[in-house]
Amino acid sequence: MKYGYFDEKNREYVIDRCDVPVSFTNYLGLENMCTVISHNSGGYSFKGSPEYGRITRFRPNGVPLDRPGHYVYLRDDETGKYWTVSWQPVGIDLKEAEYVCRHGLSYSKFECKYNGIIAEKTLFVPLGHDVELWDVKVTNTSDRKRAISLFSYVEFSLHQIDLDNKDFQMGLYASGSSCTEGVIDYTFFYHPDMHHFMTADFEPDSYDCVRDEFIGNYRSESNPAAVENGRCSNSSKLGGNHCGSLHKQFEIEPGQTIRAVLMLGAGGAEQGKKTRKMFADHSVVDKAFEQIKNYWRSRLANYQCITPDEGANVMLNTWTPYQAATCVTWSRFASFIEVGGRTGLGYRDTAQDTISSSYLQPDKVKQRLVELMRAQTSEGFGLHLFDPAMMDESGDAKANLPTVLLSGDSDQSVHIPELKDVCSDDALWLVAAVCEYLKETGDIDFLETEVTFADEGSATVYEHLKKALDFSAKHVADNGICQGLRADWNDCINLRGGQSSMVTFMHYWALRLFNEVAAYLNRDDDSERYSEIASRIKQAAAANLWDGQWYLRGFTAEGRKIGTDEDEEGKLFLNAQSWAVMSGLSEHDKAIRAMDAAYDKLFDRYGLHLLWPAYSKPDDGVGFVTRVYKGIKENASIFSHPNPWAIIAECMLGRGDRAFEYYTAMLPFYQNDMMEIRQAEPYSYCQFVMGKDHTDHGRARHPWLTGSAGWFYTAATKWILGVRPTFKGLEVDPCVPKDWDEFSIVRKWRGSTFNISVKNPDHVSKGVKSIKLNGQEITGLIPVQQPGTDNDVQVLMG
Amino acid sequence: MKYGYFDEKNREYVIDRCDVPVSFTNYLGLENMCTVISHNSGGYSFKGSPEYGRITRFRPNGVPLDRPGHYVYLRDDETGKYWTVSWQPVGIDLKEAEYVCRHGLSYSKFECKYNGIIAEKTLFVPLGHDVELWDVKVTNTSDRKRAISLFSYVEFSLHQIDLDNKDFQMGLYASGSSCTEGVIDYTFFYHPDMHHFMTADFEPDSYDCVRDEFIGNYRSESNPAAVENGRCSNSSKLGGNHCGSLHKQFEIEPGQTIRAVLMLGAGGAEQGKKTRKMFADHSVVDKAFEQIKNYWRSRLANYQCITPDEGANVMLNTWTPYQAATCVTWSRFASFIEVGGRTGLGYRDTAQDTISSSYLQPDKVKQRLVELMRAQTSEGFGLHLFDPAMMDESGDAKANLPTVLLSGDSDQSVHIPELKDVCSDDALWLVAAVCEYLKETGDIDFLETEVTFADEGSATVYEHLKKALDFSAKHVADNGICQGLRADWNDCINLRGGQSSMVTFMHYWALRLFNEVAAYLNRDDDSERYSEIASRIKQAAAANLWDGQWYLRGFTAEGRKIGTDEDEEGKLFLNAQSWAVMSGLSEHDKAIRAMDAAYDKLFDRYGLHLLWPAYSKPDDGVGFVTRVYKGIKENASIFSHPNPWAIIAECMLGRGDRAFEYYTAMLPFYQNDMMEIRQAEPYSYCQFVMGKDHTDHGRARHPWLTGSAGWFYTAATKWILGVRPTFKGLEVDPCVPKDWDEFSIVRKWRGSTFNISVKNPDHVSKGVKSIKLNGQEITGLIPVQQPGTDNDVQVLMG
Repeated sequence: MKYGYFDEKNREYVIDRCDVPVSFTNYLGLENMCTVISHNSGGYSFKGSPEYGRITRFRPNGVPLDRPGHYVYLRDDETGKYWTVSWQPVGIDLKEAEYVCRHGLSYSKFECKYNGIIAEKTLFVPLGHDVELWDVKVTNTSDRKRAISLFSYVEFSLHQIDLDNKDFQMGLYASGSSCTEGVIDYTFFYHPDMHHFMTADFEPDSYDCVRDEFIGNYRSESNPAAVENGRCSNSSKLGGNHCGSLHKQFEIEPGQTIRAVLMLGAGGAEQGKKTRKMFADHSVVDKAFEQIKNYWRSRLANYQCITPDEGANVMLNTWTPYQAATCVTWSRFASFIEVGGRTGLGYRDTAQDTISSSYLQPDKVKQRLVELMRAQTSEGFGLHLFDPAMMDESGDAKANLPTVLLSGDSDQSVHIPELKDVCSDDALWLVAAVCEYLKETGDIDFLETEVTFADEGSATVYEHLKKALDFSAKHVADNGICQGLRADWNDCINLRGGQSSMVTFMHYWALRLFNEVAAYLNRDDDSERYSEIASRIKQAAAANLWDGQWYLRGFTAEGRKIGTDEDEEGKLFLNAQSWAVMSGLSEHDKAIRAMDAAYDKLFDRYGLHLLWPAYSKPDDGVGFVTRVYKGIKENASIFSHPNPWAIIAECMLGRGDRAFEYYTAMLPFYQNDMMEIRQAEPYSYCQFVMGKDHTDHGRARHPWLTGSAGWFYTAATKWILGVRPTFKGLEVDPCVPKDWDEFSIVRKWRGSTFNISVKNPDHVSKGVKSIKLNGQEITGLIPVQQPGTDNDVQVLMG
Repeated sequence: MKYGYFDEKNREYVIDRCDVPVSFTNYLGLENMCTVISHNSGGYSFKGSPEYGRITRFRPNGVPLDRPGHYVYLRDDETGKYWTVSWQPVGIDLKEAEYVCRHGLSYSKFECKYNGIIAEKTLFVPLGHDVELWDVKVTNTSDRKRAISLFSYVEFSLHQIDLDNKDFQMGLYASGSSCTEGVIDYTFFYHPDMHHFMTADFEPDSYDCVRDEFIGNYRSESNPAAVENGRCSNSSKLGGNHCGSLHKQFEIEPGQTIRAVLMLGAGGAEQGKKTRKMFADHSVVDKAFEQIKNYWRSRLANYQCITPDEGANVMLNTWTPYQAATCVTWSRFASFIEVGGRTGLGYRDTAQDTISSSYLQPDKVKQRLVELMRAQTSEGFGLHLFDPAMMDESGDAKANLPTVLLSGDSDQSVHIPELKDVCSDDALWLVAAVCEYLKETGDIDFLETEVTFADEGSATVYEHLKKALDFSAKHVADNGICQGLRADWNDCINLRGGQSSMVTFMHYWALRLFNEVAAYLNRDDDSERYSEIASRIKQAAAANLWDGQWYLRGFTAEGRKIGTDEDEEGKLFLNAQSWAVMSGLSEHDKAIRAMDAAYDKLFDRYGLHLLWPAYSKPDDGVGFVTRVYKGIKENASIFSHPNPWAIIAECMLGRGDRAFEYYTAMLPFYQNDMMEIRQAEPYSYCQFVMGKDHTDHGRARHPWLTGSAGWFYTAATKWILGVRPTFKGLEVDPCVPKDWDEFSIVRKWRGSTFNISVKNPDHVSKGVKSIKLNGQEITGLIPVQQPGTDNDVQVLMG
């Protein structure tokens, strides 16, 4: 069963059955303004922060799904019949009308055919402007002249989401609305500089700024009074709930198409008037849309591949990098899952997201890296959740709130947690994030940039990385294994004084990456020092972390083993195996045994489970993971994020068939036809898939959440297809299914293009016999080439 | 225009037009469990705390209004026609069906006539049980046998409201459901001790525990799939959204009535089974309902009056004390306005609410007083918002949350604000609250009870009062006027280092009340000390606070006058006048001039405006009040809470006609027929009425919010009708409209009953010529009488 398909030519996912039981979402906006929008045009906009820069309102987890949204209503003024260009909220019987939603890259397009009218609506945020454009076209396919009224509708939100959710004695009196010269101005009296607007390229026949006037008592977005009446009531008010509805009646001749452009933006009436004037010229709208298309066309051109696997091609050339880059730009807190209640960035996920997308958006990645370092303390650990604005002396801090601040709330200083509340892994991701950025861009000078710490002082980027490594080196137990603290990557493994094998392996991995930097810079003292730490870790791990058939996950504060065959539950953890291998720490034979155990015990058709068997009894020594239902999230679901780590580990072991089996098992593309099981959108990796211990086994939940897409992208492009930037050149080291004959990659790197063609006549998984660069045989790395050049690379596996 | 009427006999407000454009709400529950319910049966339940003890879900400020709720659907199984016993959510055309909602005291009853069926549903929480009973009766008024399916519906909520609102990656996986032996058990795996249940006295034919199975995709509570199908799908799940729907088909003979009792409760399946067994006996249900009726009958019997004014009688004998007592029990944070996002108690409002309701519920008031003192610091000030559980060493602290706590969130210790974040008035209300409790109950020993401070140490109640007075005495400026600090009673006047006349008058008032205690206890040293402070204040006020025609509201930190005729805006503030008089500080002639100015400039048909003229320009020296739209809330609305202070002041000045004019202007009863203006329910005082500078002038907003009902009650009963408990006896000192011939009061006080009859043959406003107690003329106070006695009191005014 499916709800849509991939339109490769247009890089769109096309939903042609709009009655999906969950939200299929997309992200509009690439700079300041963002809209999260569903296949039924439900969703919300914000500028800057979804917590305190909200523009439109959304009722998450609502009944019915995904209300309100950014809607266009059409009304046949002869018959009174009305509908929306998106299927919902009016929801015409799908037997009577055709609806399609096309989610493209940073735009979404809604099409409908009903009642002799074809209508479409394209939503996007043009580059350089804080405005969402609604490009609407209405075609009369009947044989008579038609009078069609068009109504826009958004519900404005108080800009601060907590007040908007629950304190109506302030929230409902803090904002006001007016409409002059065709511009609806939504204002906050207490905050004179903040306005939002809605306008259009037409002169409205009527308007409503007051939500409850537009909707009417005991009605909903499904049957608004204004649309039913064929006219808005020209309402506006100071205080109350506000909306943006502009109404215009169009007379449309048979065969004629009319076009209307609506604009939802940040800024006051003046800004609205300027914007209105600019985009009333439809060629400006067309050009702005073409810019968005070009934005992605040119960026995605930095990496394109043709492999024997259709799903891999579609996802790697478009959807996975789109997801990873979107997570870097908007983070997890802008979604339908976390709806702005938390703000800012998660340390570890942001760091990981940057790893995979520096080739797409190096400037954005660099900005995020600086923000991550500003959120690192001089002790070396990272602030688990943080708002970059709070560390940015040049930027705006949080906006004023429409209330007298409560005691304590006025404290906007950065909160530095105690050690027990620190996550043991956060800052270690920074090391890899910076290294990948350097290898991609060659921007070695970045290491000398001075960046402040969250608490006090500042240091160069290079020294920031050392602080992260030193923090982990300091917080080890007597056995040499890193302490788990509040949590490691797994938020629900809360060891406090206990020890984590995963963070120990991660520490080793980060040391290895750092040592490449130190070696490249000839910092011999650092090389020596951090190599020595790495070798101490290796010894400690060998002495303590092998359980006999696989690696342990760690120890509780009382010294009990976690992830041991001796236990009844939680015997085997995926991450302990994949990280032992991926970090380069494990000896080969143990690596093989550990990864085989993972395959045997954790894998099924949807991917690798996080642990086995699921916990059924609370055990606070291990952590919150034992308090989650079986098969859900951290308690033995098929968590997406760690699956690519296993792929990387298998590639390091040379087992390309298994690596690719893991890759395709979780590939959303291949679940497009089984939506009765998956449910979630098939163009986005989800946070997790329900595990075999749950009645909803196979159901995917939380699309767009960070970390997963980036690591799958890294695993597929750098380890399966095997082209990896290093400081000095491109490394080519594929690990593919044996039955692949060939594949090719176009890779732009440091300004030149590499057209890489890989042949596999001997049907091996790993091993490169020869590489020809522009016809010349080379050994080892492909050196950096003259910017602007096009280079032919012929690789022969065997 | 009206939506209902007062049914005096049943003490019910009857809504017979259910399409009210706002929520008319009621409160069920008197002990641990509470439900806030609307006239369309929308609303939510919680146990203990609306923030972290939530049971059912509610989408405040929603579209449509007030979803979801506690619903009973009926379905004609021959035709498939279905409806709800409350008008919404199905919302049958009101031309085709009759709907009535009766809000009674701690119960609400819904009635409908439709399709040959009369149905009613009574909701209440029986004393001694944490369960809401739904007593449903369905009568077949047609002439043929009918097959009617009944479905219950509630949507369960995650118990912690913040997660329920916005963190769906945790919230949607933390709870599960099952149904065994007719009991739906809603559980939190991470919190094994917390369950909620839904059950019924019947064996269900089918059930749904999963919300989205009951409702169906792209449907809503208006047209749930299960009801349309005539059967639930027996769904249950771990994770997801949960509901309580039990379905039963009844065959009903012509003229027959069937009865079904549904039960929504706190506790697990075992508790559900016990509850089910108990209330399956309908006589137990009847008895429990009778207990609720008796609860209020006996308590309200402590004060009943008959005056020439119908509105005063209805409100004073039933609705105003009901509102005041409800505010003491459930506080403001359980409402449709603040929906549990803030928890616990507001210091000043709780203190004030107790003032008016100790005759109704002395134990509850005593508990609140202790909680207020526990939230007082040893410095003397109160914590503006606090959760009593945090100061209660014996009680449960907040429940665990279904997430790993974020940095800093684990800190549940009491936060003591800095001086700049302290409200200057909070603790002063405590003095009056304790004094009124003592006068009502005679529980003088309470003064010797030892109570802890919020920060450290403990003291007797008597010493706590002194701390409050000392704090205000310490924080005065050089001119002897009290500092405003973060705010005084007016949250939006934020003077910080500036000074507040209101808090200065309040300090004087509290000193006067305390001195009565000290005198009664013969604590001469304290009497002397605090009398001296009072006289210093009087001098300072005389020297600094008179503006020439009225009293100033204070001074900004830079020394600018506030509330002066010299300004263009904010010339005159109500509270500065009423408190100058009510505190007893003002000289008589200034009192008259000040109160006349208030009458001239601030009064209109809906009551007294808070200030005049409204502010139009932000002035942060004055405070947030200048950042609110004109005519709304603190910026020159008709704020309810301060109106009774003006009534008390006028009574002290002997101007009974004006006092009563103020009283009736705001009396909700008299706005029952003008709901097109008032909108809000006419049985409850609202926080404010839109002022004359707003387009919605006259509209009342925020029913049930604390403070207002209590003070109106105090003003009417103690100052207009003029019977005031003192330490030694009842004082009789009415101040009534001159045209009143007579009125009578039944007052129970300290165990005996006083049947007080007041005659006013000379048509004066004030002045008592003679009092006869049981036939004997007395002078001065009516002494305490033997408990259990009935006493006749004849008062002659003149």
